[in-house]
Amino acid sequence: MTIENAAPGKDITAEDMRSKFPLAAAKHPGHRSIVEVGGVAFGAETLPVMAGPNTVESRALILDIARTAKAHGASLLRGGAFKPLTFPYRSASYFEPGAEALGWLAEARAETGLLVVTEVMSEAQLPGVCAVADMVQIGARNMQNYPLLTAAARTGKPILLKRHFGASLRDWLGAAEYIMVEGNHNVVLCERGISAPHTHRATSRFLLDLQVVPAAREVTHLPVITDPSHATFWREWVAPLALASVAAGADGVMLEVHPEPARAAVDPLQAIDYAAFSRLMRDLDRIAHALGRQVRPDLREAA
Amino acid sequence: MTIENAAPGKDITAEDMRSKFPLAAAKHPGHRSIVEVGGVAFGAETLPVMAGPNTVESRALILDIARTAKAHGASLLRGGAFKPLTFPYRSASYFEPGAEALGWLAEARAETGLLVVTEVMSEAQLPGVCAVADMVQIGARNMQNYPLLTAAARTGKPILLKRHFGASLRDWLGAAEYIMVEGNHNVVLCERGISAPHTHRATSRFLLDLQVVPAAREVTHLPVITDPSHATFWREWVAPLALASVAAGADGVMLEVHPEPARAAVDPLQAIDYAAFSRLMRDLDRIAHALGRQVRPDLREAA
Amino acid sequence: MTIENAAPGKDITAEDMRSKFPLAAAKHPGHRSIVEVGGVAFGAETLPVMAGPNTVESRALILDIARTAKAHGASLLRGGAFKPLTFPYRSASYFEPGAEALGWLAEARAETGLLVVTEVMSEAQLPGVCAVADMVQIGARNMQNYPLLTAAARTGKPILLKRHFGASLRDWLGAAEYIMVEGNHNVVLCERGISAPHTHRATSRFLLDLQVVPAAREVTHLPVITDPSHATFWREWVAPLALASVAAGADGVMLEVHPEPARAAVDPLQAIDYAAFSRLMRDLDRIAHALGRQVRPDLREAA
Amino acid sequence: MTIENAAPGKDITAEDMRSKFPLAAAKHPGHRSIVEVGGVAFGAETLPVMAGPNTVESRALILDIARTAKAHGASLLRGGAFKPLTFPYRSASYFEPGAEALGWLAEARAETGLLVVTEVMSEAQLPGVCAVADMVQIGARNMQNYPLLTAAARTGKPILLKRHFGASLRDWLGAAEYIMVEGNHNVVLCERGISAPHTHRATSRFLLDLQVVPAAREVTHLPVITDPSHATFWREWVAPLALASVAAGADGVMLEVHPEPARAAVDPLQAIDYAAFSRLMRDLDRIAHALGRQVRPDLREAA
Repeated sequence: MTIENAAPGKDITAEDMRSKFPLAAAKHPGHRSIVEVGGVAFGAETLPVMAGPNTVESRALILDIARTAKAHGASLLRGGAFKPLTFPYRSASYFEPGAEALGWLAEARAETGLLVVTEVMSEAQLPGVCAVADMVQIGARNMQNYPLLTAAARTGKPILLKRHFGASLRDWLGAAEYIMVEGNHNVVLCERGISAPHTHRATSRFLLDLQVVPAAREVTHLPVITDPSHATFWREWVAPLALASVAAGADGVMLEVHPEPARAAVDPLQAIDYAAFSRLMRDLDRIAHALGRQVRPDLREAA
Repeated sequence: MTIENAAPGKDITAEDMRSKFPLAAAKHPGHRSIVEVGGVAFGAETLPVMAGPNTVESRALILDIARTAKAHGASLLRGGAFKPLTFPYRSASYFEPGAEALGWLAEARAETGLLVVTEVMSEAQLPGVCAVADMVQIGARNMQNYPLLTAAARTGKPILLKRHFGASLRDWLGAAEYIMVEGNHNVVLCERGISAPHTHRATSRFLLDLQVVPAAREVTHLPVITDPSHATFWREWVAPLALASVAAGADGVMLEVHPEPARAAVDPLQAIDYAAFSRLMRDLDRIAHALGRQVRPDLREAA
Repeated sequence: MTIENAAPGKDITAEDMRSKFPLAAAKHPGHRSIVEVGGVAFGAETLPVMAGPNTVESRALILDIARTAKAHGASLLRGGAFKPLTFPYRSASYFEPGAEALGWLAEARAETGLLVVTEVMSEAQLPGVCAVADMVQIGARNMQNYPLLTAAARTGKPILLKRHFGASLRDWLGAAEYIMVEGNHNVVLCERGISAPHTHRATSRFLLDLQVVPAAREVTHLPVITDPSHATFWREWVAPLALASVAAGADGVMLEVHPEPARAAVDPLQAIDYAAFSRLMRDLDRIAHALGRQVRPDLREAA
Repeated sequence: MTIENAAPGKDITAEDMRSKFPLAAAKHPGHRSIVEVGGVAFGAETLPVMAGPNTVESRALILDIARTAKAHGASLLRGGAFKPLTFPYRSASYFEPGAEALGWLAEARAETGLLVVTEVMSEAQLPGVCAVADMVQIGARNMQNYPLLTAAARTGKPILLKRHFGASLRDWLGAAEYIMVEGNHNVVLCERGISAPHTHRATSRFLLDLQVVPAAREVTHLPVITDPSHATFWREWVAPLALASVAAGADGVMLEVHPEPARAAVDPLQAIDYAAFSRLMRDLDRIAHALGRQVRPDLREAA
């Protein structure tokens, strides 16, 4: 009988890096990996931006947003076909996405050339999602759903692994290791806000943890991006924290964008509109450029 | 298009109780339900205790613990056949439980008459688990794995729903509602520690939230128990916090018990030994009795 | 040049106990001190209860509460003459206590025989407070106001040291050591709720940390009590958490009591009324008695 | 009898802004104040940087650091003459700063022209500190030491008000209001890390809360800066989080700088050395410039 889990301390040790998550662990200071997703590189000089609605509400909507995302320099289209909503009830007019929404994502992909990243909530959804998605998202709530991690890993698709809002960096890297041990090393980590004592608004439940960006870079070679939309749950804070993410060293950002945010079917307080998205893409590039990276070099060249 | 999730505030409103979790919500002050599991009542005057090892390590071990649990007045035997361990690696000598462990749990049940509660991590495990278990445990990490909640609910088995360490009470009741909306109203809630700023030991990651016990009783009629073993991750704190749980109004406790805790295969710092378990059962009864409830009335009658 | 503060880790080490707070540290497992305050012992078999209003609002009020507190078995009268309110404004009708309130506390003490514990916010208030108080309270917000700790220690009065809602156990014991190093070893620690991710009500800002009770007993010999009124900020939760405190091993409790809680000048949501106080004193005694301690043995003898 | 503190909720309401902190509250969206300190403006296009050692260890040290800070474009020299250390003991070789250190700060100020900001722990220290300091720092631990806030405000000196690591934004603005109600409107807010569930290193106790930067800008017109050194307690994370602070909209940063950080008398893990400081000043300017502000325009002009 041996001890499998004797000291799950709050912090990461060298022994953890050797024996608990050897594949995810950095091998030497400054060790960084590049994860390629359909020709887009995470962890490189150019920072990919994922943009799109919370939920794929309709064909027209997703096509419109995809065109806008493309025009402003995003590399991936995000949008939920399967959504883990906190409560089981839907209003009569609510459109439940699913297989049909996956088709619309495929159409948007074909038209714009944007890659698609979308969430999977169960093993049963994997074949349908993988037929469309270039990158499979494991949502925060399923970060430690190990059977799902294993099944998703085995599809060979690159995985976007969101951090659960209650999880430590150590827990998160354990989840990444479950994917990598299946031979799938294409994992991108995504910080999306933690449960914290102070979040500053009644409707903002989470706090974006930007300290985790340099902390992760010390112990893992995997790229780290952030999702300031879900973290802040308040559109006014999305731009400042997206910019701060890149300044802190994040390898990309995921943004919720909607033509009429207040009418979004889900989370209408957090999406930004097209004008705000346009300004933010320009500013993200400026911040990246200030630190030797870039988001939309074409903007600067044109200037 | 309607707003499904417009204001996921930090706290519960009357509107939440009406529209977000109407089945889990208390209908009037003091509304309490009794959940029956194989003749054992949760939410009644007599408080059930669940005891057992973290992991079903061997046939001999589980039978020995079951006999001890029974002798000291526990009503349910706990023990993991499927364990969501934080990292994917196991030592060479580690016994991976699973189907074989389920058989041993069945044997312990047959011999001692204890009911069995054990965790399920995926839909695929449900048939095997349901053939043995009187109560199906949804672990903290799967609290918002909604497809699993739905599938587990549909088995008709009573569900032990652990709170995720990052989840609010509101999130937790949303998960309970996903079970109840399937027609399965036999849900027992289990608090097992939250991620918090201060946990007081390098190896203790969680803080047992006892404020949630009276808070839950204000808004839900479902029984609430606690698991001080996983919360404290330190055996010396298990007894004080188990006693405090009952004093705070908990409807039962779950305890990790092992004949040689330091040799437990998983989490060897948190299990209590037989002598500590015996003392704790006596003291739990004393506390319960002081408040008009009971755990082991036979102990008092014998005295 | 030497390192004074090299590793202020999150948790307490044996080295901390030897060099950082040697006076507050337990010398051996089970080491417990008794702190005597005017004949009342903290840390002994009988648990002292402190009761009273948040603020000493009027002479009539404090006398009425004092008589009730005495009749129900409290040992100390609490009540603020100097209050660190979060905002600087007071309504026209607000009575600012202060020196006059200290006189009323003295009168209540003389009439009832209750000891007085009251807060001091600055060195300038110490002479006036010490002329009346049997025990000087350092409020949570001043826990690391070291000049105040030193000055209060030097008066020789027993000190009630509240834990700041953001402070670790290690920080708290550092503050105790600042008092003890002045030769004043009569320190009682009081947990009053921490800033935490989940507090369950919009108006409840803190979470009572009961895990700190056994955690403190491992590393310090000083008595530990709790203040569930300030922690919960909601009167319905005060009794369950007061009872849980004693079950967890607390050496006493502090309670806010008011004849008409909804009309209390400060924090009207947290005080309990006389009937609730009466029931709680009985139940506290029952819980204490179940564990070999007592609060009001006369109640049981009379029964 | 009136209700002074009826609903100290977790979040700020319009009513709070009107009645609880009307002086600190923003009067309209986008309302920003400029606070002038000896010719240096906080809240303007050019972002002031405060740099210096944790503790004024010696005359030679503070003069050397002051010259370096000046050469690299800092506007203020920081350094503690009075330090609220967590434990009362000092090693034999520890130099206790105090009045002598204030003299050295004055000398550094005279030689370099840098303004001086230094902490005050008690009213008794105010005259000595005010004779030297251009800006008086209220440390995190004294954020709600209201008598000290009032006394400091009455000196007329600009105040740097650090946020306590357990305090909400609402608490913090209440403290600012205590200063402003005395007629002193020259308040600069400084975020320096909060107690949070995840801090990612055993020796890092705090999490820099960058969400508070846009949150504060919504409700107050006062400038907000950050102190990433105390927040992260780990020098490797100081630059990423200083840069992120400016990207999030902070009006300046405070940095701990030391020629030989590992030999610093206090907190040797958090100070950055001169080379890192030089690089950081350049990068801060680049980030500021990307967003229409600046730190060291001379650097760019020279380039």
